[in-house]
Formats: sequence, C-alpha cells, structure tokens
Amino acid sequence: MIYFDEISLATQGFSDIMDITDEVEKVLKKSGISEGLVTISVPGSTAGVTTIEFEPGLVKDLKEALERIAPANAGSYSHDRTWGDGNGFSHIRAALIGASKSFPVKAKKMMLGTWQQIVLIDFDNRHRRRKVTVQVLGE
Amino acid sequence: MIYFDEISLATQGFSDIMDITDEVEKVLKKSGISEGLVTISVPGSTAGVTTIEFEPGLVKDLKEALERIAPANAGSYSHDRTWGDGNGFSHIRAALIGASKSFPVKAKKMMLGTWQQIVLIDFDNRHRRRKVTVQVLGE
Amino acid sequence: MIYFDEISLATQGFSDIMDITDEVEKVLKKSGISEGLVTISVPGSTAGVTTIEFEPGLVKDLKEALERIAPANAGSYSHDRTWGDGNGFSHIRAALIGASKSFPVKAKKMMLGTWQQIVLIDFDNRHRRRKVTVQVLGE
Repeated sequence: MIYFDEISLATQGFSDIMDITDEVEKVLKKSGISEGLVTISVPGSTAGVTTIEFEPGLVKDLKEALERIAPANAGSYSHDRTWGDGNGFSHIRAALIGASKSFPVKAKKMMLGTWQQIVLIDFDNRHRRRKVTVQVLGE
Repeated sequence: MIYFDEISLATQGFSDIMDITDEVEKVLKKSGISEGLVTISVPGSTAGVTTIEFEPGLVKDLKEALERIAPANAGSYSHDRTWGDGNGFSHIRAALIGASKSFPVKAKKMMLGTWQQIVLIDFDNRHRRRKVTVQVLGE
Repeated sequence: MIYFDEISLATQGFSDIMDITDEVEKVLKKSGISEGLVTISVPGSTAGVTTIEFEPGLVKDLKEALERIAPANAGSYSHDRTWGDGNGFSHIRAALIGASKSFPVKAKKMMLGTWQQIVLIDFDNRHRRRKVTVQVLGE
C-alpha cells in the first residue's frame, strides 16, 4: 500500500527550523499503515529535512553551525554574482543536509527517539510557502 | 514483505564509529528478501548512520572532520548553557549526518562498494547502549 | 513491483558534479511504476548523491564549500599517511554527503522542485567510471 499527503507550511526562511513531527504522525495515522517506511521530502533546492531535538537552544546552535559551514555572505558565492538573488548559501546548505529522509514504521509508530523530532529547514533568504511530501509505503 | 530486526551495541560515545555491515547483512539474510530496500536507522538525537571505508586512518580523519565542523566546545552551545549536559556538539553532528540511510538490495546483496562499510556513529559525550533498526522491504 | 537499472558515467573526480536527473527519469519511465519510491545510490566510498540547482555558479560554490569542510590537503589525513593514495578528503566528503537518496514518486513523477536536480558527486582524486543504481519500488 502507498499513501501520500502534503504538509503546507509558511516559513521565515534564513534557516527557519520547523518541527513537523506531529503533522507527519497524523499522515501516518490516516494512512492506516502499521509496518513500512515513511519518506518525508521537500521539493525545492533551498530547503531540507533532518531530525534534531527540537528545543530553542539547539535550534540556535544548528543555525550557527550552518553559518560556519556555509556562511550567508552573498559576495562569496558565484551563484549570487551570476543571478543576484543572494541565496547561494541557501542552495549549498540544502545540498549538504538533503531534501528527503526515510524512517521505518513498526506497530504504527515511526522508529524515532523520544527527543528526536523531524524538522523542515527553510534555507532560503525570504519568506516561503512550502509543501512537504509525506509518503507511507507498507501494509 | 517487510522484515524488522535490531542490532544492539555498546558504544564509547564521542563520535565512536562502529562498523555494523556484517550485522546488517545477517538481518538481510534472515529476512529471505532478495530484491528490495534495506533501511538502517538509529532512534535518538545524538547518533547517526553513514558509510565509509572502515579503516583506522579514516576513522580518525572523520572524527577530526566532525571536530572542525561542530567542535566539542561546551561553552559555545546554547543547548549546553540551558541544559548543562555538554552534548550540544553531539546533537549538531547528528542533525548534519542524519539518523537513517537506505540501500537497494539485488540478488540478496546490498548495492555497496567493496570498501564501503555501513557505520553507526555515536556522537554523544558518554557511553551509550544503542539499538539500530534494520528494516528490509521487498520480495 | 521492484525495478532496477544502472547509469554508467565517466567522471573527472575532484568533486566532479554531474546532473543525472534525466537518466533517473528515463529509468522511472521504463519501470512503468506510477506511485512509489525511487532510490539513487552509488556503490563506493568516494562518491555521493544529493540534489542541487544544477547551474555553473552553484556547481563552483558547492566545490568550494566542500573544500572548506574537508580540504584536499593530503598531509593532514591519516588515511593518506597510511595508504599513500591521497584521497582521504574524498572519503570524508563522501561520508558527509551520503551515497544514497530516496524520493517519492506520484503520478509517474519524482517529487522534486523545478530547479532541483539529482547529482552524482565523484569526490575521488582521479578519473573514474561509476555505476549509479536506480531502484524503483512501487506499483
């Protein structure tokens, strides 16, 4: 069985980190699938999906880490010199984190830790509307 | 068909890198599945799964790279200032590497290179017991 | 249903970034599968798969970001001191980016953004022939 749904989100951009665990769990429940694989994926080249303990300190720490890894310094990106949209850093961060993650489902639950939340990160340099795809494959 | 199993591991923490390829292959064999997808996933927010050539030099190199990317410097993490558990760096490394990886299975074998091993990395700042989920989906 | 195919590529190494979206779409079409999951995976420990807007500026930017994250400085890697093949940086970059990515398929299309291409990155320090595995699981 294959079940699809989308989560619609308004984001602030600039590595806005949003906890989507509850929404993913709702999709899983609606799917009726008890054993399988859930894939969370964001179409687009300036956003990503990962997991983290969603608490304000770590949200700040992850933004700072991303700033060290791919600084938001427009002048230093060829993408920005060519296209002038100033979001070269957003694309690089997205390529590093990845746009999609998959987790096993057992007894109607995703195999995640208690303090492990699924997050969408919007790396873009402006407000965006995002649609996150949630797919459940199983039985 | 969907098959589940768990691998139990004692780790040292501090980006302890453990080769779990043989254990994953044992689960795949037990599953009897010859074509499909194997997903290796670690519940928790301070561990990750990836692949690397598992040899002592690269194990050391990867630890050093992680130290450059997210230094184990307690004072610099909001998480540590708030919660005092000193493992902010562990959470950040885990969010960057990811908690789950999936690989195709064909003719009862995972499509991995000869020098490519599946590793669990425990980023936490203490000894841990980990349970890695191995799920095989296929026929 | 499970469908397999391989994409053969000649790469230049040194973080050569190659757009394989069209080839993956061809495999998806041949599979006849309209709903499911496509997994793109490269066997080997010095290559990776991710997504990015494939334009010359970002290709350059991503190479520069990888050089900051894991510099191609042979002297600083234990792997290179032990084995002398000078590609320690290649292995580290591959372990960070990951060798495999999965994307949902709906109505015969991968759920990717318009400017989001699937790329193989060959991190090795020489020309290589690569075989990328494309697996489609679904119905």
